[in-house]
Amino acid sequence: MTDRGLRELVSSGTAVRAVGVHDGLSAILAEKAGFEALWAGGLGISTAHGVPDAGILTMTEFQQDAVRIRRSTSLPVIADVDAGFGDVNVVRRMTSLYESAGIDAVCMEDKQYPKRNSFRDAGQVLEEPEQFARKISAVKETQRTDGFMMIARLESLIAGVGMADAVERALLYARAGADAILIHSKRNTSEEIAQFAERSREAGLALPLFAVPTTYHTATVQQLHALGITGMIYANQLIRGSVTAMEKVLRSLADTGRTSASEQEIASVKELFDLVDTDSLDDSAVRQPVAVASLS
Amino acid sequence: MTDRGLRELVSSGTAVRAVGVHDGLSAILAEKAGFEALWAGGLGISTAHGVPDAGILTMTEFQQDAVRIRRSTSLPVIADVDAGFGDVNVVRRMTSLYESAGIDAVCMEDKQYPKRNSFRDAGQVLEEPEQFARKISAVKETQRTDGFMMIARLESLIAGVGMADAVERALLYARAGADAILIHSKRNTSEEIAQFAERSREAGLALPLFAVPTTYHTATVQQLHALGITGMIYANQLIRGSVTAMEKVLRSLADTGRTSASEQEIASVKELFDLVDTDSLDDSAVRQPVAVASLS
Amino acid sequence: MTDRGLRELVSSGTAVRAVGVHDGLSAILAEKAGFEALWAGGLGISTAHGVPDAGILTMTEFQQDAVRIRRSTSLPVIADVDAGFGDVNVVRRMTSLYESAGIDAVCMEDKQYPKRNSFRDAGQVLEEPEQFARKISAVKETQRTDGFMMIARLESLIAGVGMADAVERALLYARAGADAILIHSKRNTSEEIAQFAERSREAGLALPLFAVPTTYHTATVQQLHALGITGMIYANQLIRGSVTAMEKVLRSLADTGRTSASEQEIASVKELFDLVDTDSLDDSAVRQPVAVASLS
Amino acid sequence: MTDRGLRELVSSGTAVRAVGVHDGLSAILAEKAGFEALWAGGLGISTAHGVPDAGILTMTEFQQDAVRIRRSTSLPVIADVDAGFGDVNVVRRMTSLYESAGIDAVCMEDKQYPKRNSFRDAGQVLEEPEQFARKISAVKETQRTDGFMMIARLESLIAGVGMADAVERALLYARAGADAILIHSKRNTSEEIAQFAERSREAGLALPLFAVPTTYHTATVQQLHALGITGMIYANQLIRGSVTAMEKVLRSLADTGRTSASEQEIASVKELFDLVDTDSLDDSAVRQPVAVASLS
Repeated sequence: MTDRGLRELVSSGTAVRAVGVHDGLSAILAEKAGFEALWAGGLGISTAHGVPDAGILTMTEFQQDAVRIRRSTSLPVIADVDAGFGDVNVVRRMTSLYESAGIDAVCMEDKQYPKRNSFRDAGQVLEEPEQFARKISAVKETQRTDGFMMIARLESLIAGVGMADAVERALLYARAGADAILIHSKRNTSEEIAQFAERSREAGLALPLFAVPTTYHTATVQQLHALGITGMIYANQLIRGSVTAMEKVLRSLADTGRTSASEQEIASVKELFDLVDTDSLDDSAVRQPVAVASLS
Repeated sequence: MTDRGLRELVSSGTAVRAVGVHDGLSAILAEKAGFEALWAGGLGISTAHGVPDAGILTMTEFQQDAVRIRRSTSLPVIADVDAGFGDVNVVRRMTSLYESAGIDAVCMEDKQYPKRNSFRDAGQVLEEPEQFARKISAVKETQRTDGFMMIARLESLIAGVGMADAVERALLYARAGADAILIHSKRNTSEEIAQFAERSREAGLALPLFAVPTTYHTATVQQLHALGITGMIYANQLIRGSVTAMEKVLRSLADTGRTSASEQEIASVKELFDLVDTDSLDDSAVRQPVAVASLS
Repeated sequence: MTDRGLRELVSSGTAVRAVGVHDGLSAILAEKAGFEALWAGGLGISTAHGVPDAGILTMTEFQQDAVRIRRSTSLPVIADVDAGFGDVNVVRRMTSLYESAGIDAVCMEDKQYPKRNSFRDAGQVLEEPEQFARKISAVKETQRTDGFMMIARLESLIAGVGMADAVERALLYARAGADAILIHSKRNTSEEIAQFAERSREAGLALPLFAVPTTYHTATVQQLHALGITGMIYANQLIRGSVTAMEKVLRSLADTGRTSASEQEIASVKELFDLVDTDSLDDSAVRQPVAVASLS
Repeated sequence: MTDRGLRELVSSGTAVRAVGVHDGLSAILAEKAGFEALWAGGLGISTAHGVPDAGILTMTEFQQDAVRIRRSTSLPVIADVDAGFGDVNVVRRMTSLYESAGIDAVCMEDKQYPKRNSFRDAGQVLEEPEQFARKISAVKETQRTDGFMMIARLESLIAGVGMADAVERALLYARAGADAILIHSKRNTSEEIAQFAERSREAGLALPLFAVPTTYHTATVQQLHALGITGMIYANQLIRGSVTAMEKVLRSLADTGRTSASEQEIASVKELFDLVDTDSLDDSAVRQPVAVASLS
């Protein structure tokens, strides 16, 4: 489906910047801006639907939106699949549905159902490690193509159970077959991430690492890469930017009764057409105008 | 479904500002900003999917997105249904699907399949008036609730066939049962719209009028209302604003390797949570943390 | 949506025979045969999808199929919603999605996730009563129309925890707001059902009762009604019948290399047309034949 | 997706029997009965939805049901795509959606929109040959894998425009890139089909032929194969058989007030479980029973 698979990208040694997108349009913009991969994230997609990121949308709703994103670009797509949406039987079906739709990777987190967004204080309850390892194995046993990746997302630092727990889980998840580890942190600096990278390496973890620099946004791609992070997921900035922009347009319209003031600040209709390749349409089937003489 | 139906709003004599939205989030923002109605528009929804506005998405895809919008707010929702997506049998099913999902109105345009976006130069081919009138009647015969509205969208001025054609069609569509007329224009001023309002009134048209001030954005809600326009549809400004904002976030990330510079300009994660009422979640089912002692 | 609501039917004192259907066609057949209601059941719909009845399909997949059934007839539709598909937040959304689509009732069972079909030996684990009562309340607090019903399905007899547990739960569920109780049994006679009807009445339960005479199929509608059962759900017989018929057609084709032997035993193509009202199509838009002279 | 691709099967020289199926269950039955391929047909799927076969369902609805069928078996799936659901732009998207979902072939017919089922008298209007050839080319230019096939369905004999038209169109469609020709006939014998096979071969057509022996059901697979037909599509017999069986079950229930008389004639619940491999479920996540002591 993609010009260059995620697995190849991840093995190449370069930093992989995955932009969180929530629909086809945001995916197109991320590709045009030169990024390497896309993150079909639960927070973005849930918010776009107007519902909280708390296991409210179903697996097939998330999958459908990941597929929309898949169809819109040629970049690798990593799908956020929460905690797998159910037991191992559901995880098997989930794997099959995502893989057969051309998604490059699923990223599953080790939290219990019902999960809560990691940036929310309440509700951060971890899954039992062995139970989660069985879900990882279920993904790996189900997939049919070599390129498809299973990224295990560690929530130990989010749940406050400590670095040792995180490292131990990472090793267990690797043994269960995970292709990469996403280590999540909500600290304001990348120190915790750096520590995890170092300690897990010392403990023998050889998998590529992913991180989500939402709260530690001062760390650059280069700095994170130097710490040993292969993939950086910019999970929610696009949708956050779009909220502010839409609020501004709405305020201006409400205040002035027209959109003239916004006109210089927003993309033109022509730009919308171009983003979705409107000029590539074949107009051969468009018919000739019908005169209305019969009416007069 | 809605706190106050569209029909009631339209009859009340006040100006009805309908904001074009493309997903649940944009719908929530428009409601919070105090607008009266929502426009589930073909250009916005197609662009969000990453495809041209040219009859590419199917009726059920458009309907599903209109339903997402419906679920996200209590405002009346007007659904753009292109030229009805097919023959009168399809129009009947379309009416039934939209009405039963709580959509307040469908707005159907008198263009032939395959349609092209009205702001595009090519491909503006009108439907035969009598054929279109039959589709209007099909909507009215199919609907089951009184509140549901059929808005007939006139493309005569877009297709360049003149004001007389527009007025004649408006009268025909009114006789066929239309509840309102949307008169579309791509001029830079509202003059054409004003003329239509005047001439159609003189010719005996008694239906409420809608307009889409995309190109004549200097005309205010108050001015258009004074001309006799009841509903103003701000069809595409939100998605256009979001494009510019997302491009800016992406450029900053590409240039600086981090999102710090964007942080002050984009909504916080907390604001996303609040927009979708995350705090209203019932957390009673969230379980207690599971210790990981068994691993050590 | 329906000619006569389920609540009205249930209060009328007559026996309500609900036929388990899995798609629009089976729904149409049940309506034509004169039955009073439809059961959009988990086993039927899962089997039609080709997956086990074990929480594999998502809520939105089940809802979509219930909606297909809803659209195909004017009979009341009772939707089987397993254990509610998640926590109370999911139950709220579920209620809203089913009710707004015109479904007349949801039937939720007091089993823990991941559930297993009640006729399977393994995996019959009950939900804690108070936890389930909260889900019942969540349905009742969410619904917006009076007619919508919440049927609480008791699995105590299936799980083998005894009659006292069943009665106690029934009273608790009634206090939580349930509009009816479905008492499930897999005995070969209706004795267990009769006992429950008697004891729960003695204990003060005043709700209408539903039963599923799959294993105790010798009991007639009249006999069950005399025991105090209002609704009889014939959950899976249609799909079971269709399996046998399709196997026979396939075998004959495989054996004889043609379908001639089946022709007298299967509905004609014309009958298919009639079942879905093909003659009611408006053919006015069908164009005149195009000659192919230009090719010769 | 499939164990053995359709293209390979078609080239192998053996007769390919494709069974028309309308959901996952019928697909599973056809595979278990030893057939070579599946036909995701418009009549079957429309009827299962409860709507006429007249372009009522949208492309994405048909595609979704073809995908359900795809997921349920390992047989090649040929999807009936009516006349392509729109202009060449829609045909391109259609191709992409079906191919990326693992469908092996699309079969597109040369009728004008709005189409009518070929066994219906009214409404058989052919598409202009060159226009249809452009749609064929659009499929071929869009597909990304070699195995995907485009089957062009000829309706000349259905529309009554003669054998010469059929042969001429077949040659044109072959030049446009079709991988196979489906020649449709509603005669009671296979004579017309035999003539087409002979004349088109004499005229130089070298593509594999498909036929639909619905009305000429006395012709066997072996006889049709001897005439030069590679693929025989048994398009609607399964759903027709299921109608008769369901009607019988319903009548017996209505007459006797119970399903006892049907019990010996319909599949058991256990057979349903087995058809969808219920025993392959991993029950490791099913929890232990919860005592209800707290209530007593």
